[in-house]
Amino acid sequence: MLLRDVAERLGCELRGDGGVEILRVAAIDHAGPGDLTFVANPRYATHLARTQAAAVIVSKGVATLLPSLLSTNPYLTYARAVALLHPEERSEPGVHPSAQVDPSAVLDQGVHVGALVVIGARARIGRGSVLHPLVGIAEEATLGEDCVLHSGVQVRERCRLGNRVIVQNGAVIGADGFGFAKDEHGRYHKIPQRGIVVIEDDVEIGALTAIDRAALAETRIARGAKLDNLVQIGHSVTIGEDTVLAGQVGVAGHLDVGDGVIATAQTGIPASIEAGRVVSGYPALDNRAWLKSSAVFGRLPELQKRVRELEREIEELKKRLGPA
Amino acid sequence: MLLRDVAERLGCELRGDGGVEILRVAAIDHAGPGDLTFVANPRYATHLARTQAAAVIVSKGVATLLPSLLSTNPYLTYARAVALLHPEERSEPGVHPSAQVDPSAVLDQGVHVGALVVIGARARIGRGSVLHPLVGIAEEATLGEDCVLHSGVQVRERCRLGNRVIVQNGAVIGADGFGFAKDEHGRYHKIPQRGIVVIEDDVEIGALTAIDRAALAETRIARGAKLDNLVQIGHSVTIGEDTVLAGQVGVAGHLDVGDGVIATAQTGIPASIEAGRVVSGYPALDNRAWLKSSAVFGRLPELQKRVRELEREIEELKKRLGPA
Amino acid sequence: MLLRDVAERLGCELRGDGGVEILRVAAIDHAGPGDLTFVANPRYATHLARTQAAAVIVSKGVATLLPSLLSTNPYLTYARAVALLHPEERSEPGVHPSAQVDPSAVLDQGVHVGALVVIGARARIGRGSVLHPLVGIAEEATLGEDCVLHSGVQVRERCRLGNRVIVQNGAVIGADGFGFAKDEHGRYHKIPQRGIVVIEDDVEIGALTAIDRAALAETRIARGAKLDNLVQIGHSVTIGEDTVLAGQVGVAGHLDVGDGVIATAQTGIPASIEAGRVVSGYPALDNRAWLKSSAVFGRLPELQKRVRELEREIEELKKRLGPA
Repeated sequence: MLLRDVAERLGCELRGDGGVEILRVAAIDHAGPGDLTFVANPRYATHLARTQAAAVIVSKGVATLLPSLLSTNPYLTYARAVALLHPEERSEPGVHPSAQVDPSAVLDQGVHVGALVVIGARARIGRGSVLHPLVGIAEEATLGEDCVLHSGVQVRERCRLGNRVIVQNGAVIGADGFGFAKDEHGRYHKIPQRGIVVIEDDVEIGALTAIDRAALAETRIARGAKLDNLVQIGHSVTIGEDTVLAGQVGVAGHLDVGDGVIATAQTGIPASIEAGRVVSGYPALDNRAWLKSSAVFGRLPELQKRVRELEREIEELKKRLGPA
Repeated sequence: MLLRDVAERLGCELRGDGGVEILRVAAIDHAGPGDLTFVANPRYATHLARTQAAAVIVSKGVATLLPSLLSTNPYLTYARAVALLHPEERSEPGVHPSAQVDPSAVLDQGVHVGALVVIGARARIGRGSVLHPLVGIAEEATLGEDCVLHSGVQVRERCRLGNRVIVQNGAVIGADGFGFAKDEHGRYHKIPQRGIVVIEDDVEIGALTAIDRAALAETRIARGAKLDNLVQIGHSVTIGEDTVLAGQVGVAGHLDVGDGVIATAQTGIPASIEAGRVVSGYPALDNRAWLKSSAVFGRLPELQKRVRELEREIEELKKRLGPA
Repeated sequence: MLLRDVAERLGCELRGDGGVEILRVAAIDHAGPGDLTFVANPRYATHLARTQAAAVIVSKGVATLLPSLLSTNPYLTYARAVALLHPEERSEPGVHPSAQVDPSAVLDQGVHVGALVVIGARARIGRGSVLHPLVGIAEEATLGEDCVLHSGVQVRERCRLGNRVIVQNGAVIGADGFGFAKDEHGRYHKIPQRGIVVIEDDVEIGALTAIDRAALAETRIARGAKLDNLVQIGHSVTIGEDTVLAGQVGVAGHLDVGDGVIATAQTGIPASIEAGRVVSGYPALDNRAWLKSSAVFGRLPELQKRVRELEREIEELKKRLGPA
């Protein structure tokens, strides 16, 4: 595709030679002839002098002699360029003959059901959704339109997914919450978990992430939230809109995590989090405070030594001053 | 169901009008007409004044004008009420035609084998057990009576599950332990893992939890233990009776975790734990000590600053006192 | 097998009676008659006096009256003895009739494809590889020779595994990396993930471990690396040769972890790690430093108290000295 055509498709202003041929997108330190690259972080602008790329997506302010696509948000334009130049193979509509679809399940138009998928009784799969091989959809679960469930995903009974939900491989939606009542002998009795999980539109769920169903009501992942791999969401939790949980984050049961929260990798969330916060560590702290505390953590032996030294010095001073 | 019938079925003393109709169970802050709710924690008793619930499960000491079921353990009674009023759909006995059951496997009476389940040679499934879709049971593995394995669970060769074991979706029982011998070139050689995993009666295993088989003997999860999601159990570990491991807990190989231990979420256990302890953090500390240390962790930058200030003050005092 | 035959097969020098019968391998504290045991760690040599084992693998320097196999690396010899005395049942070549193998996929000689395996279009499975039940191999993925993929493993499109790669149950290779571009409304847009995962020879991947594909290039796990269970590898990461990542380790995207690195359990790696380091904690520190800091962490409340005490003492000293 010619750069001028890329510019048009992405709605970008073109600077320089629009006639260069673009074959693919590549990171700036890997890019060669035929590659469109991008500078989203001004720190990388220094790479522009020596890149072999054919063209670059940049902010208006960035100076370069390379043919350029000007963007107010180069990273977002890059995302669109990848989609344009590296299109995914479409999964053709149809049901693989080895799939086990209950006769009472409803599949809307254009649905793709891969090999060895199981769809339970009264489940409903919305228009254009794609179920890759070995996915299990239990009874009465519902998926909206244009969802993509990668191989090995399990969706439990009655859970509800909105539109354009993407679930990576092996994730589990709607397993029983972790609830037990202790009897007088110290033994635990299961609280039956009869609620559901609701996943709103435009959510992405990472590989091997587990989202538990509520005991009675619902666990909810709100519109646009993005969960990375191996994340644990306890039952009756609400995750806010556009909230991002990085890899291996854990959220205890019965909490509200507000809109637009970011939890960095391995964060453990034991209490509700207000909208807009960036949190880290376990128990979760504000990210900046956690970074500072973590820095001191690495120097704790030295700090302890300094306190010991101070104690010695004080003792000495007290001796010199004699009895009070 | 009338409240008086619920009382009878749950073996509770009734206080107030037994003729109210009970349709379902609900948490006290969600309950409306037709709902039975509960107060297990006295902190929530204040909600009683304004709940719309039709009736409530309470301890004898709790004052309320609502029709009540009196219980010495309201939380346990609540668990039973959920089971009574929200019965699960029974999985009918039978083997789905798409399941792949080795002819040498033995299925006892009343077993349910879902779609696309694989059962290997000489495996045995005890009476009344339920295997949901896409479960894999390898050669010579055995399950006791009334087990429930949710979709996507994998049980490896020769592992043994007791009675009433519940395994949530995607959990892996009996993968190879992590054992390698280093050679003189710094390369690792696999120690073959030929032991098994034994899971005793009344254990529940969370979604996407991994319990490794021993190299030679066994990894054992004792009666009544409850493991949450994404828990990692190393090989040759023993987990005690009625022990609770919350989400994302990890237990290193070759350890004993005693009976009645509680490990809070994300705890990392690098050494054996005595019975009855409540532990947190990594490396695991007593929960109270960990909570206190964690509180100080959040103030470490301030503590460091105070130490620096003390050093300055001592220097000043020393100056004022002159040479010793 | 007679001990002298074991000695010959393992290439060990024999000391004592080579005519004793060896039935199996056992740990020194479990070993009984017929058992071959080993002492790899000199700490365990004290067990030699009272073991019931028939024979023992030891270093030359270890004194014992038991019939012995002498080894310069007893732990490695033990690994080989387990393989010799506890041979695994071979998976016979062939394709289970319930497997769904795309006609365009290529299976080399001696491949075993278990029940309900899915192999996508143009995928290639190398000679002697074994796919256990319910494994999914997506389009154009390739496996080398003598790989073993345990049940429930998912390999995504175009990913490439070398020779002798072992993947434990439920692991996910090649799910989408976690990349999103934020727009001016605070909403996230997916960066399409079109790269792959490359796994080199002799790598082992633990159960329920997730290794993400790169956006454009590749995520690479180099020769001989060993990853334990529930490990998270972000996209575009490189893991070095013979590197060991213990259970629940997380590696953020776009990093290089050098050769021969060891990360202990639950380590979180937010930045590249040089070859040969042993790291722990989050953010990852050198293991020794982390151990020392962790020890102080457990005493933080006491340290805080000591600082408070010092502040009091300084105040008192200042009072005694009067105004400066």
